[in-house]
Amino acid sequence: MATHTILAPSAVQDGPQAALSAQDALVIRLATAARALLDDPAAQDAAQSHNATELHQLCLVVTALWCRVLRYDPATPDWPDRDRFIVPSQAMLPLLRAMLLLSTPEPDTTLPLDFGLHPAVEIAPGPAGQGIASAVGMALAEEILAARHGRSLVNHRTWVLARDSDLLTGIALEAAQLAGRFGLNRLAVLVCPAPRTDPTDFSDSLARFGASGWSVRRVNAHSLPAITAALNATLRARKPTLLACLPDGPNPHPPMPAEEEQTGPWSPTARRGASARRSWLRRLTRHRARTQFEREQAGLAPPLLSEDWPRLWRHDLRGNSSQHVALAGLRTLQILRPELAVLAAASSTSGSAHDIPDPHWPCGLQEHGMAGMLGGMALHGGVLACGVAGMITIDRMRPALRMTALMRRKVLYLLTNDGLALSDGGGGWQPVEQLASLRAMPHLAVFRPASAQETFACWQAALLWPEGPALLVLCPHDMPDPTAPDGNSPPSGTGASGFGSATHGGYVLSGTRNRLVTLIASGPEVAVATAAARLLAVQGIRAAVVSICCWEVFARQTEAYRATVLGSTQNDTPSPLRVGIEAASSFGWERWLGADGIFIGMDDFGISAPANAVYERFGITAKAVCGRVMERLGVVATEQGSAQEADLS
Amino acid sequence: MATHTILAPSAVQDGPQAALSAQDALVIRLATAARALLDDPAAQDAAQSHNATELHQLCLVVTALWCRVLRYDPATPDWPDRDRFIVPSQAMLPLLRAMLLLSTPEPDTTLPLDFGLHPAVEIAPGPAGQGIASAVGMALAEEILAARHGRSLVNHRTWVLARDSDLLTGIALEAAQLAGRFGLNRLAVLVCPAPRTDPTDFSDSLARFGASGWSVRRVNAHSLPAITAALNATLRARKPTLLACLPDGPNPHPPMPAEEEQTGPWSPTARRGASARRSWLRRLTRHRARTQFEREQAGLAPPLLSEDWPRLWRHDLRGNSSQHVALAGLRTLQILRPELAVLAAASSTSGSAHDIPDPHWPCGLQEHGMAGMLGGMALHGGVLACGVAGMITIDRMRPALRMTALMRRKVLYLLTNDGLALSDGGGGWQPVEQLASLRAMPHLAVFRPASAQETFACWQAALLWPEGPALLVLCPHDMPDPTAPDGNSPPSGTGASGFGSATHGGYVLSGTRNRLVTLIASGPEVAVATAAARLLAVQGIRAAVVSICCWEVFARQTEAYRATVLGSTQNDTPSPLRVGIEAASSFGWERWLGADGIFIGMDDFGISAPANAVYERFGITAKAVCGRVMERLGVVATEQGSAQEADLS
Repeated sequence: MATHTILAPSAVQDGPQAALSAQDALVIRLATAARALLDDPAAQDAAQSHNATELHQLCLVVTALWCRVLRYDPATPDWPDRDRFIVPSQAMLPLLRAMLLLSTPEPDTTLPLDFGLHPAVEIAPGPAGQGIASAVGMALAEEILAARHGRSLVNHRTWVLARDSDLLTGIALEAAQLAGRFGLNRLAVLVCPAPRTDPTDFSDSLARFGASGWSVRRVNAHSLPAITAALNATLRARKPTLLACLPDGPNPHPPMPAEEEQTGPWSPTARRGASARRSWLRRLTRHRARTQFEREQAGLAPPLLSEDWPRLWRHDLRGNSSQHVALAGLRTLQILRPELAVLAAASSTSGSAHDIPDPHWPCGLQEHGMAGMLGGMALHGGVLACGVAGMITIDRMRPALRMTALMRRKVLYLLTNDGLALSDGGGGWQPVEQLASLRAMPHLAVFRPASAQETFACWQAALLWPEGPALLVLCPHDMPDPTAPDGNSPPSGTGASGFGSATHGGYVLSGTRNRLVTLIASGPEVAVATAAARLLAVQGIRAAVVSICCWEVFARQTEAYRATVLGSTQNDTPSPLRVGIEAASSFGWERWLGADGIFIGMDDFGISAPANAVYERFGITAKAVCGRVMERLGVVATEQGSAQEADLS
Repeated sequence: MATHTILAPSAVQDGPQAALSAQDALVIRLATAARALLDDPAAQDAAQSHNATELHQLCLVVTALWCRVLRYDPATPDWPDRDRFIVPSQAMLPLLRAMLLLSTPEPDTTLPLDFGLHPAVEIAPGPAGQGIASAVGMALAEEILAARHGRSLVNHRTWVLARDSDLLTGIALEAAQLAGRFGLNRLAVLVCPAPRTDPTDFSDSLARFGASGWSVRRVNAHSLPAITAALNATLRARKPTLLACLPDGPNPHPPMPAEEEQTGPWSPTARRGASARRSWLRRLTRHRARTQFEREQAGLAPPLLSEDWPRLWRHDLRGNSSQHVALAGLRTLQILRPELAVLAAASSTSGSAHDIPDPHWPCGLQEHGMAGMLGGMALHGGVLACGVAGMITIDRMRPALRMTALMRRKVLYLLTNDGLALSDGGGGWQPVEQLASLRAMPHLAVFRPASAQETFACWQAALLWPEGPALLVLCPHDMPDPTAPDGNSPPSGTGASGFGSATHGGYVLSGTRNRLVTLIASGPEVAVATAAARLLAVQGIRAAVVSICCWEVFARQTEAYRATVLGSTQNDTPSPLRVGIEAASSFGWERWLGADGIFIGMDDFGISAPANAVYERFGITAKAVCGRVMERLGVVATEQGSAQEADLS
């Protein structure tokens, strides 16, 4: 069970002047070998030589960590209960390369140290600070899994080889606060000041982490006894640890170790790692939750989920807005897939009383840190990471969301409080261009359901989306079923036959036959389109209503399907006029509307007014849509039609 | 000169038990009146009642600030040397409303407290923390202006009424570090803990600001002598100040003041403000730099700028990449418009040796804080704010950039190191969807010049862009002039006549006559388009090359101009095939390509490889473009053509 090597007390208590034990001498010799690898001109490029000082300064610390503490098995670098050793910047990769060469018996030097190509690379390089947030997410995933499956299966740590500039960034400071709040004591960040860094600035960085619930420890990076003591203290810490490696005194430069000491099955890291993995495998074989654990590690859904989930879900429904339905889906999914881990930002609930289901990890206003953590949880594996936040905050999360998409990891985002609905007094601070900017991101799927029914379909499609993260954009206001036979459904005159389904990303809600107009909308604006279709029917204009709830999924359908939905294959009639309706920027809509389409949406940021007034101001009403269509078609409103219209609207 | 009221020492030294002076008693009576206004049910809505505790807790502090220190003249709330009183959240606006009612003789109660509508509202409400970053920018603008024009014209302070949650956010923590580094001692943030905030969390927030070079001061929010002492200390501080207003003891509740004390010309705030403004106006009239000061305050360019700037600029050119040229433009503009204030992120220079011209304010990796500051500087007025950062970091700056666009303030951004050029070893962390996501933002103009010549035109157009912020996306690599008669220009057979100019946002570089194909590109990909046009000419296919350097400006041209450029008005020939070429996401390109166009760009994130390999991998080469066009047109390559092609490529 005690799978982390706890070092002999003698190594801790001896001062730097004490005679070195044989093990200590080996670590120091290996650090010398690592330094030689760092200086190897064949492996150096221009970018790395800038950081030679930092790499050398951290070399003994990292060697000691790898030799004595880190759980790494060169035979299977990606086994589930390994320690995570995170190198989030290109600049620090040479140290990882050196460690891999020293601990692997027959290293494959042709394998590039790229994420997705080398199994020991846990993360792709990204913006400064991103790696710390990801590591916080990994440590949280470990914590969650250990609580569920016990320390016999989940007993590892997360180590980050950061740069001092990482500590300055907003994302790192946000994630650090969350790590402190959640008490993630199995997380440790190793850092040294860069040569040009002002010592006061570095101290300030440490103080900010100290004020965020971290145990900050200064260690002499050139003294193995001090390093050993610090690593031991880290293993015992009750908080996340920041190890500041400061040089003091000369860097020990003993002779190189013999070759058989450097690699081979007897290298300390490989020996310890292989033994840890073997005993973990024995415990896993005997574990009663083995099947479930393996399913979760593989990221697979339980066999009957697609049947059980909707049944349980319908039972739990309260309210029919997409937000209500999606949160009910989250609640029921937590029961069926206990590996679901929910992080929730404070913005997700503001202005409305929708409760985020428990258990969840509240992340306050630190949305950027939270998004970085979600990516880290997905990288860790074994949990299904889900974030709940207000739609308007997505811009803050974007840099971290992008890295998740780049690494093609599945994270689910429920974005609440969408639309103009909550604009009252917000001074125009509403989402406008967010939908377009999200749809432009590769590997990401954006779902914006229009009704309770669509929310079911979109939630399930989001879970199945194969390429990476998926977002559900949710509105807190009532959404009547547009196909229901109440006042909101189009009259039978428009041809109420639908085509396709929400799981295709876009489909015809009503009016496939002989249409003159295709009204294409998403989310709450589908109701506007349905009402406009009714007004147009009064004027004798047949209009189809298309709900396009996910562009990315719709784009993956066959061309014939898309053409049928959008209405361009009807050879007997002229191609119908396409009208896009969305309370957002028009950017990108030409894709579905073509050169001759009309877009009705927001050409500006919002205004400070109640939601209805904003819809009026931007002309996103059934009457305005009807007027624009009639103007384009050159139809003059009939008197009878106008009278009926007045009755209906 | 000493325009801030320095209070009599007696008010400071007396303990809370001392008898109140007449002035103290008036302040306390006015705070009572303010509290009554806060509780006025007519002005309350649901959102505000949540914050009643915080509002009451800050009421005496804010009243004392307004009565004794703040420079506010109700007759001209927006005079240049006023103190900035920043209320960045909707929740705190009732306090501003109360202060305005108490200090204005005949308040116009119909005027909404919205940014742009009420002259005393300095900022639109935005994401948490945004207001603190903006205030740091305002304080920096004050500092810059005071250094240029002297304290006789510029001698004000910036006060922020923040919420404790603001202090937790990444943007506030980044901006706080910059405020500390720049020593902005005329900035003060007032904050009190929300009722639900854990006292330890609040202390941690204060400690983080303390570790960022701030003077953190706890003050008893219910004791006027303590408040007076704290305000006095703030006026003398050598660092930015965080005033934590903690309740201790009962809130004094004396009788309401008489009506003539509350408002009217004798209210303490109005009296002091009017007098300060009058003497400032006298000093301005006598000031030797008065004309220049007034021009800068009005945000106007000097009369001969459009002639002087290019002349000076051409003289200063070193290198012909858009990045070189744009930075030279910045250098020369600093001479001609000394009000230019440049903030530079570390990412702007990484990987290349382009120097950001001095003077500039280095903002390290705190891009989000920097972007918030740039917005604040533009709100302050008198300076022309310009930010220089790496293109890939724009996602971090996006939430703050968005608020600048929402408030329609002019900020110039130079985004360096664009494109795949710097991908070596970056693991795919290159801009891909950033261009689309920026083009989707209202009021923002995105320029991506293709040559030295275009960079001149784009820089000047960015300065003239009337709606809000403007971005220049710059590439550090050599950009030969595509119209020059060297190997890069299209052969004469394609019809080398151009049409339009870069100042129109898009124009025909070559080949207007009888074209079969329009190749539309931006930035470095214009060179690819030019080379492809040459290859196509060999195959007998006439192609025009269109450089679309700014979509927003191009969209503002007449429809006839756009049609001529894109090639759809030639009634004698079939409409030419449109091909978009950009090393970025295709999202939004349908706008120019129509339903039948071809887009050649990135359908995925980048890969880790040298730039040329990335261009090859994504098929963004002249040969690949030529192949796609010929395939679409159904042309088989002639043997002669292929041979010539091989020679050319």
